[in-house]
Amino acid sequence: MGKPDALMHVLLALTAVIVCGYVLGRLFRYVGQPPVIGEVIAGIVLGPSLLGRFAPEARQFLLPDSIAPFIGFIAQFGVILYMFLLGLELDTGLFRKRARATVLIASSSILVPFLLGGVLAFYLYPLLSSEAVPFASFGLFLGVAMAVTAFPVLARILSDQGIHQTPLGSLALSCAALNDVLAWCLLALVVGVAQSHLGSGFMVIGGAILFIGVMILIVRPIAQRVVARSDDGDASRGVITLVFVTMLLSAFTAEWIGIHAIFGAFLLGAIIPHDSAIARTFTAKLEDLVTIVFLPAFFAFTGMRTQLGIVETGHEWLLCEVIIVVATVGKIGGTFAAARFTGQSWHDSASLGVLMNTRGLMELIILNIGLDLKIISPKLFAMMVVMALVTTLATTHLLAGVRGQGAGVRKDEQSRKQEKRMDTAKAI
Amino acid sequence: MGKPDALMHVLLALTAVIVCGYVLGRLFRYVGQPPVIGEVIAGIVLGPSLLGRFAPEARQFLLPDSIAPFIGFIAQFGVILYMFLLGLELDTGLFRKRARATVLIASSSILVPFLLGGVLAFYLYPLLSSEAVPFASFGLFLGVAMAVTAFPVLARILSDQGIHQTPLGSLALSCAALNDVLAWCLLALVVGVAQSHLGSGFMVIGGAILFIGVMILIVRPIAQRVVARSDDGDASRGVITLVFVTMLLSAFTAEWIGIHAIFGAFLLGAIIPHDSAIARTFTAKLEDLVTIVFLPAFFAFTGMRTQLGIVETGHEWLLCEVIIVVATVGKIGGTFAAARFTGQSWHDSASLGVLMNTRGLMELIILNIGLDLKIISPKLFAMMVVMALVTTLATTHLLAGVRGQGAGVRKDEQSRKQEKRMDTAKAI
Repeated sequence: MGKPDALMHVLLALTAVIVCGYVLGRLFRYVGQPPVIGEVIAGIVLGPSLLGRFAPEARQFLLPDSIAPFIGFIAQFGVILYMFLLGLELDTGLFRKRARATVLIASSSILVPFLLGGVLAFYLYPLLSSEAVPFASFGLFLGVAMAVTAFPVLARILSDQGIHQTPLGSLALSCAALNDVLAWCLLALVVGVAQSHLGSGFMVIGGAILFIGVMILIVRPIAQRVVARSDDGDASRGVITLVFVTMLLSAFTAEWIGIHAIFGAFLLGAIIPHDSAIARTFTAKLEDLVTIVFLPAFFAFTGMRTQLGIVETGHEWLLCEVIIVVATVGKIGGTFAAARFTGQSWHDSASLGVLMNTRGLMELIILNIGLDLKIISPKLFAMMVVMALVTTLATTHLLAGVRGQGAGVRKDEQSRKQEKRMDTAKAI
Repeated sequence: MGKPDALMHVLLALTAVIVCGYVLGRLFRYVGQPPVIGEVIAGIVLGPSLLGRFAPEARQFLLPDSIAPFIGFIAQFGVILYMFLLGLELDTGLFRKRARATVLIASSSILVPFLLGGVLAFYLYPLLSSEAVPFASFGLFLGVAMAVTAFPVLARILSDQGIHQTPLGSLALSCAALNDVLAWCLLALVVGVAQSHLGSGFMVIGGAILFIGVMILIVRPIAQRVVARSDDGDASRGVITLVFVTMLLSAFTAEWIGIHAIFGAFLLGAIIPHDSAIARTFTAKLEDLVTIVFLPAFFAFTGMRTQLGIVETGHEWLLCEVIIVVATVGKIGGTFAAARFTGQSWHDSASLGVLMNTRGLMELIILNIGLDLKIISPKLFAMMVVMALVTTLATTHLLAGVRGQGAGVRKDEQSRKQEKRMDTAKAI
């Protein structure tokens, strides 16, 4: 029948990716894990690591390499929208509550893994990098990749465990949010350094500072005025267009300066008050499309690029374990130490450390940027994807261990909730 | 600073296209014309016809040819979503009211321009086509391109003129809706014939009939059951995922059979009851994103492909005028005759004819398909784009002429409404 074309394959690929991600996501949710892990694994399953290995023809039909640019484009566009939504949901007021503890814990939860990542880079650079990549870029990037926390996954785990409104939950949320902001600033810096030639690095840093300054000093007051006016009624078509255009321009400017487009989208989202009608309108309009259609494309794109097969030797898998251990120790250790220092109980400090170790989707976004810029090799990329999966998977288990009996009780509540959810799902 | 990349250019191009379309759309709305004309003209302004001619470097920066595949992809994806929304809004119950008149008028409003287009094809084929295109494809396509009515633009004109709830308005709406359905079926057939090699045409037709049968006999009852269950509360994430997946699959299947993906999306939309919670949810979620972000990309893509400069000689512009006259006479004449036959007043019949002559966005979608399949040449494409613009522009003027004094009074009401809208817009 009709000749095969790109559009047709993209439609089919999206369908396969969404269905597979949804099913695996449900499965992981059923066993008390964040669904995002299932969605990431769905991407890997459909990629060269599994389907490509055992049924190359099926993969060539479902996800042919020829559509990679389009899947990649949907993925990039989706992540930009997603980061904008994350920014919109960011409650900057959180930082002000228990400000000292939040700032200290968030900084330490970034700094310690960042430094450990930098140290690890000395060891990994000769093994997994080439001379084409300057060590500075490699080390900085590895540091950032170790330091990231997945704010959305963490928020989901907190509410799944029913602790998002406890003092521990709100402290974890505010630390993760600040961690996010700091990590993205750091990433913007690293990407700027990596993309620029020697000397023009200052241009990028200068441009980034100027951009952030303009956004906060000029765009923010305007945004607040627009928000205040449109809070009276529904956001009009003009306002919605204005927000879309500003978001595109902000993402474009960030990309043009040499930091990444997603940083611009996130920053604009963060500037718009999270409890405004505009924020609610955009979240309601975009969230489903982004998380149901666009993010699975991102997971598929990540999966297409994750070649677990090239991590071959026992030594390489050992390196992968070292990465996981360093990432975990750095994150949990850094968070725990700072939390104890600010006077949290041993129990809460350990819980915070475990929670901040969730990397999820954020890690994948950063890794893809590193792969795009050729700072990390496909082999290191595959190892880091495994690290992201393992640290995210470990969170609920470790949390149950740390929280002991209490967590057990809550788990029962949770499974009852899940059964109810499953019943609703069956009704479809 | 940062090296130029595709993502950056797409972000900038989208921004330019949305802003330009919004401003021109407002301008046209201000003078009492449907904004869609402004948006189409914005696409042409940014394309090779104007910006490319007078400021080729600006165009190369704003809309470089290298990003055409991505803009094209967003456009295609956007049109699929848009057709799905149109299907969702389609009230199939409309057909049952004054069924005989509706069916007669809609059929005649397709048949007469379709036949005239076929006759015109005999004249245009030696002048504007090559032997690589079979005459059957060319003639059928030209017929369909003449027969289309832009349901959404028509609906907008009706409500702008304040006549959408009059008997004339509801008759016009139901005729246009049925016209839409018939025209898309006809297009599916034409595309099927054009895409298939001799002999396999029956496969395509058979596939299309089977597809429509499965959708109506199997998918429709399931959809109605899902709809009935989810009407109790909010559409759950599972239901939303299901609808997205079904839409993608339906579009994929239509494309695979050899009719166009948009037909599958439209058909699924039409199957879902238009007054259900699901239809409302999807319209609320997608409408703004699609009309504000995706459709401007479609207009830009169309503009990029519209080379008004290649319609050069006086004779070619004469051909363009002939196309406009044939399209208009066929559409108005066919509608008018059938309307008079079913007993409408002279006045209402003429109004109906004028309204059905609106081609707008629908025509552009069909023309792009024709260009993609190489059934029409870039030159004929440019001429037909002009025809689509002129017939759409003419509608409100002709309507004012036909409706005389009454329309004048309504125009005053309308301008007051518009002034109010403008005030709201200024407040942004």
